[in-house]
Amino acid sequence: MELEDYIRDVPDFPVEGVLFKDITPLLKDPPAFREAIDRLAGRYAGVDVDCVVGIDARGFFLAAPLAFVMGKPMVPVRKEGKLPSETYRVKYELEYGFDAVEVHRDAINAGDRVLIVDDLLATGGTMAAAAKLVEQAGGRVAGIAVLVELTDLDGRSRLEGYDVYSLIQF
Amino acid sequence: MELEDYIRDVPDFPVEGVLFKDITPLLKDPPAFREAIDRLAGRYAGVDVDCVVGIDARGFFLAAPLAFVMGKPMVPVRKEGKLPSETYRVKYELEYGFDAVEVHRDAINAGDRVLIVDDLLATGGTMAAAAKLVEQAGGRVAGIAVLVELTDLDGRSRLEGYDVYSLIQF
Repeated sequence: MELEDYIRDVPDFPVEGVLFKDITPLLKDPPAFREAIDRLAGRYAGVDVDCVVGIDARGFFLAAPLAFVMGKPMVPVRKEGKLPSETYRVKYELEYGFDAVEVHRDAINAGDRVLIVDDLLATGGTMAAAAKLVEQAGGRVAGIAVLVELTDLDGRSRLEGYDVYSLIQF
Repeated sequence: MELEDYIRDVPDFPVEGVLFKDITPLLKDPPAFREAIDRLAGRYAGVDVDCVVGIDARGFFLAAPLAFVMGKPMVPVRKEGKLPSETYRVKYELEYGFDAVEVHRDAINAGDRVLIVDDLLATGGTMAAAAKLVEQAGGRVAGIAVLVELTDLDGRSRLEGYDVYSLIQF
């Protein structure tokens, strides 16, 4: 099965000139979705992982079933203002302006080995912020996993020192 | 196992006077998370379901693993502007102002029996809009499932005619 066949190009989203990689066809195809989750679970079967972080919101589609299959805690990293209890926060720069990610202060234990999951790795800004957030919370980044990596944008250069894995590369 | 022990009260979120039901402790406890998903899967094992809809964003935590376990397509219903391709849209009233939910036009087939999943049923406004959206897309609502139901707010009264199921009632 070629997982890339289940990723759809949507031109001019969210803004003109951007070719958006839409993962909803993969979510809609049970064998493809199963293959993606099984391959991620297999990739980390021999890795010491204490919890799985999913990044708001498309990362949840993968992180939740992966955490479920692995039998590990599922920890949401969310955009600013979405988590109800006390949080750690990391602000990061966008092309225009800033954004921030947060995690509950009691979500990650000191020394926890954390697998961070998102749908897409593009320039790596959000992922680098999530990694910094995990470390601020006292965790260690055991791995970074994405469904789709846009290699031209070289997000890996912002994630040096981390083990980065992608199922699909464009 | 008492699943309600894994739901945390957070006072004054998102606004003063609201007691927020935080499901992140349940997501963080693998046996509790497994129990919740297994009980949902068991509840719909004998029901004819063609796809599972999860509501943006906390509904994804449950809908994604449930769809995965059931071997059914996972379809996201999202807040306005988040889905990249062509959508159906249902606008609904909030206490102050309006909100809207969307689904991709090609996500649900005519006659599909759709199970709608969210974390919480409160007044039922979002859920009623999601049900309307499913029907606008040509589907039929096979069931509505939530992790937590706030019975005092009587969301069920806005969902008459639908089969509504909750794992936890407060």
